[in-house]
Amino acid sequence: MKSKIECRWLENMAFEAEVNDHTIVMDADELNGGNNLGPRPKTLTLVSLAGCTGMDVIAILKKMKVEPEEFHITVEGDLTEDHPRYYEKIIVTYHFKGKDLAADKIQKAIQLSQDRYCGVSAMLRNGTVVEHEFTIEE
Amino acid sequence: MKSKIECRWLENMAFEAEVNDHTIVMDADELNGGNNLGPRPKTLTLVSLAGCTGMDVIAILKKMKVEPEEFHITVEGDLTEDHPRYYEKIIVTYHFKGKDLAADKIQKAIQLSQDRYCGVSAMLRNGTVVEHEFTIEE
Repeated sequence: MKSKIECRWLENMAFEAEVNDHTIVMDADELNGGNNLGPRPKTLTLVSLAGCTGMDVIAILKKMKVEPEEFHITVEGDLTEDHPRYYEKIIVTYHFKGKDLAADKIQKAIQLSQDRYCGVSAMLRNGTVVEHEFTIEE
Repeated sequence: MKSKIECRWLENMAFEAEVNDHTIVMDADELNGGNNLGPRPKTLTLVSLAGCTGMDVIAILKKMKVEPEEFHITVEGDLTEDHPRYYEKIIVTYHFKGKDLAADKIQKAIQLSQDRYCGVSAMLRNGTVVEHEFTIEE
């Protein structure tokens, strides 16, 4: 199966992507020629990771009849000093709130996501093939 | 330098992330327990990649005095059949429109982004470390 997105340059450093019938604007901050019209694209990778593993975990916990009152995830990435600047280490922290939540089931749900289901985690750990091409039209 | 995002569970499969003072909602589609309130998280990785390399390319071209009238990027990912399902191959296509655009400069700008500046491309190619932990509060 293939996924495809389109991302259009707006002006200066701002881009607008069409993805699953939604629009996401990305932009640089003022120090880097942008106007902060949207988040930085690199940080979006962390959002992508949080959403992917978060959906796994909440779906697995539902099957286990574990229902947290609140659930949020923080994702922290350490950027390399040199170019290309990327996250050389990423820490995902899952925060649950609720009465009598079973820690063993929560741990199991996270492990299943990290080891078996979360495609973004797997891709970030293992790497993938990125190819490129271009077209020019008058 | 560190980047940090927070991503909060809303309901069912919907999550809301706070990133660079912007809010991004992600959701599953109806077939997977969601309501399509936002894009799928995995597809956001492709958006992140497009924005990261797009900003490089447009900034480099500006320094080279190459100004396209229009510029958009398509990113296509091939998903693995088995879990964890991730993009085993990603193709980034840069589309330029404009009068007398110098193909050699455009190629150079893309190459500089892919080889030297685009952190998302580098991270996806090389892989990174992903660790996890969790907290439970009553």
